[in-house]
Amino acid sequence: MPGPATAQILVKSLGSSVLVKLKGGREVRGILRGFDQHLNLVLDEAEELKSNKTRKLGTIIVRGDNVVFISPVM
Amino acid sequence: MPGPATAQILVKSLGSSVLVKLKGGREVRGILRGFDQHLNLVLDEAEELKSNKTRKLGTIIVRGDNVVFISPVM
Amino acid sequence: MPGPATAQILVKSLGSSVLVKLKGGREVRGILRGFDQHLNLVLDEAEELKSNKTRKLGTIIVRGDNVVFISPVM
Amino acid sequence: MPGPATAQILVKSLGSSVLVKLKGGREVRGILRGFDQHLNLVLDEAEELKSNKTRKLGTIIVRGDNVVFISPVM
Amino acid sequence: MPGPATAQILVKSLGSSVLVKLKGGREVRGILRGFDQHLNLVLDEAEELKSNKTRKLGTIIVRGDNVVFISPVM
Amino acid sequence: MPGPATAQILVKSLGSSVLVKLKGGREVRGILRGFDQHLNLVLDEAEELKSNKTRKLGTIIVRGDNVVFISPVM
Amino acid sequence: MPGPATAQILVKSLGSSVLVKLKGGREVRGILRGFDQHLNLVLDEAEELKSNKTRKLGTIIVRGDNVVFISPVM
Repeated sequence: MPGPATAQILVKSLGSSVLVKLKGGREVRGILRGFDQHLNLVLDEAEELKSNKTRKLGTIIVRGDNVVFISPVM
Repeated sequence: MPGPATAQILVKSLGSSVLVKLKGGREVRGILRGFDQHLNLVLDEAEELKSNKTRKLGTIIVRGDNVVFISPVM
Repeated sequence: MPGPATAQILVKSLGSSVLVKLKGGREVRGILRGFDQHLNLVLDEAEELKSNKTRKLGTIIVRGDNVVFISPVM
Repeated sequence: MPGPATAQILVKSLGSSVLVKLKGGREVRGILRGFDQHLNLVLDEAEELKSNKTRKLGTIIVRGDNVVFISPVM
Repeated sequence: MPGPATAQILVKSLGSSVLVKLKGGREVRGILRGFDQHLNLVLDEAEELKSNKTRKLGTIIVRGDNVVFISPVM
Repeated sequence: MPGPATAQILVKSLGSSVLVKLKGGREVRGILRGFDQHLNLVLDEAEELKSNKTRKLGTIIVRGDNVVFISPVM
Repeated sequence: MPGPATAQILVKSLGSSVLVKLKGGREVRGILRGFDQHLNLVLDEAEELKSNKTRKLGTIIVRGDNVVFISPVM
């Protein structure tokens, strides 16, 4: 399980848009619907961002070990 | 085991087509027949997508640690 | 142990030819003789496929953590 | 859990600015708000530093396995 | 421990020459003297094969996590 | 926990300068203040060495999984 | 712990010179003073070998997960 500080931010971000930086430089953005102890994430209305292009993905499950950082979108 | 939110999406996707982004940029698409606690996936009528080419694979088992994200095909 | 769905496909493939995609783009093909909880595979009459070349290997043990996907050959 | 020496530095750095070097050469900087047993970090007012560019990220959760080193900003 | 099918092949190969494909494309060949639960291997009269060159190494211990596949030399 | 031989060297190096080779070719140097069971290291007066340049970092926590080797500076 | 076959070779090599091949192609050579269950190694009078250059390192601790193979120097 992520520690309390980590889990607290994620809980607060449920239902909000987050930016997820992935290993290898890719980024995805979506509404955080869930997460688990491996930092696996469920995102709704997800988009993959690559250079200047955006690709709509709908709901996705991101495997936690690909995550570099998660940032609530401002 | 994937957490409840993750497992719930996967259970709902059983029997439906999913797009799986793999590490290294490859993608496979197929009908989700099963998954387990490592996010190992069983896909039917699977196809490997690479650049503009498609390669038919039939049933495949994807080892979970290659998965970047899983997306129900819209 | 791979979950039931994964193990079921592998059990059904015992004695049949499978294609194994490995990390780094390599592929091997052979008759599946066994597998274990790490997805280590035993293949008979194995061949390594690289670009357009084939290399006969006989019986091989593939370490499971190299596997991207396993596909019964059609 | 990080050992006592490691945890002690992190506890002392709570509320202060830290520089985090990530695998692949990226760096992020922010105010340390929390950490857990995997070295997952919560940073406030985080910025991603890349070559000469800075990108404001707000609050972020850095997954611990990306961390090379953490340095309190002098 | 490797599963029964895997261990059985390795036990049968003790005292015989095996080819070991390593991550990164290297290969070593030698007489299998031992193995353990991590697929760490002990090889006698080992040789490293790289492109067209061979380098004699004597007895070596190969760390299991570098192994892609092991093949009894025909 | 590192085994007795490993821990003994590290204990003897506490308070002394060590050179740490990191994956990807980077090196850091500093006074060893602490270490834990993952080989996480606390270094004081740390410097990052890259090609011919030196960058002063102050106190740093190096995540153990980046370490290739640790050498007391002679 | 490395299995009996692996540990036996290492015990026999204590006090003798060993060549250690590391991931990424680097090699170090030194007198084996100790090892532990992760294949962490303590080497005395260690030297880093890279292309045609040698760099003296004194005593070093090699983190086991970097090791490709260990070979007693003949």
